[in-house]
Amino acid sequence: MAAESSRIAGPDGLRADARRNRRRILAAVRAVFAEHGIDAPMATVARRAGVGVATLYRRFPTRDALVRAAYAEQMATCGQALTDALADPDPWRGFRRLVETVCELQREERGFPAAFLAAFPDGTRADAAVRERAERDFAVLVRRAQAAGALRADFHPTDLAVALLAHCGLVGALPDDRAASRRLVAYLLQSFRAEAAGEPLPPPGAVSLSSLPTAVGGSPGGRT
Amino acid sequence: MAAESSRIAGPDGLRADARRNRRRILAAVRAVFAEHGIDAPMATVARRAGVGVATLYRRFPTRDALVRAAYAEQMATCGQALTDALADPDPWRGFRRLVETVCELQREERGFPAAFLAAFPDGTRADAAVRERAERDFAVLVRRAQAAGALRADFHPTDLAVALLAHCGLVGALPDDRAASRRLVAYLLQSFRAEAAGEPLPPPGAVSLSSLPTAVGGSPGGRT
Repeated sequence: MAAESSRIAGPDGLRADARRNRRRILAAVRAVFAEHGIDAPMATVARRAGVGVATLYRRFPTRDALVRAAYAEQMATCGQALTDALADPDPWRGFRRLVETVCELQREERGFPAAFLAAFPDGTRADAAVRERAERDFAVLVRRAQAAGALRADFHPTDLAVALLAHCGLVGALPDDRAASRRLVAYLLQSFRAEAAGEPLPPPGAVSLSSLPTAVGGSPGGRT
Repeated sequence: MAAESSRIAGPDGLRADARRNRRRILAAVRAVFAEHGIDAPMATVARRAGVGVATLYRRFPTRDALVRAAYAEQMATCGQALTDALADPDPWRGFRRLVETVCELQREERGFPAAFLAAFPDGTRADAAVRERAERDFAVLVRRAQAAGALRADFHPTDLAVALLAHCGLVGALPDDRAASRRLVAYLLQSFRAEAAGEPLPPPGAVSLSSLPTAVGGSPGGRT
């Protein structure tokens, strides 16, 4: 049935038809996650993707693997945004674009906020290295933006996690109100500016990118 | 078995032992809601409260009635905070205390954020009147704080709902990180100050206290 071109493996070792099939499954997965959250039953995911549960498990042995695959592109976009921010000669512009890019992904792809959080903890060693590097890079960006006098001196790198979790919560509660999301992002960014610094802030929290909770508002035990 | 004093009805028409019993049940309800969310199965609630499901339904015919009773005191505190804010000769101080009070309740009583949201929509006519009055009062407070030059001129009353939903999301994700919650509240309050106003904000969203979603991150169909 497959055309000759479909038999040629691409750089990822998959034939064109296998890649198409995988893309189709992952689009269905994101649609289910958007509707039911990333804790949606695997049976629901399989049904929407038009495959059996056994097939789904064979391709993605764990829910984490499935979540990771479904949002690989969005996670890559976040990583690229951090790289771009560090390369920007204006560190504040880099910082602002980074926050806006991640929040835009959280806003536009409903299942992504939970996936973004789930991507961080309990990862493999490789994930831990990626995570630590992201934290180091972000700390460099923060220092540069502070040195430029744009980012307030009392901004702490953990404030990024606070802002992203708050934004996740807002878009989770109001998935269709993009204006509300943009408004919150604008307020947060203005509050991070040096000129917004008023009374001293209370001490920062303990949360960091490495210690983010696995899901926002997810019920315990929902992940199987 | 009941002592004579327990047979005397109080101002709420309940005898002292009935009031104690009701308080005990509602404390158990809040404990279950804190742990499992306000969508927790009624059977779980009844078991923790030490009553049968039928008894629970007789006292609280709907989940909304149960949620409302469980957090009646917290809702009254929010209402009082708005009254106090309007009575404060310094409208910014009133505004700030109002936001801090509601956020403190959201932070300290885990089930309250969802209950707070659930209290608003689909209410009775009486609730609608309470809600509309709260919105009118808050709009007055906003105008006064703006006239005093403390609150930024482009603050829109709907921004309160945006801030509260974001904060709900944060405390839902990090229920034990009180520092993160205080930090977000401080940032938001500073971003609302007139001196923080930088580039124009994007237009406000459509959300208001009357249009808040019934639950933060709650799965659809979870309320029975």
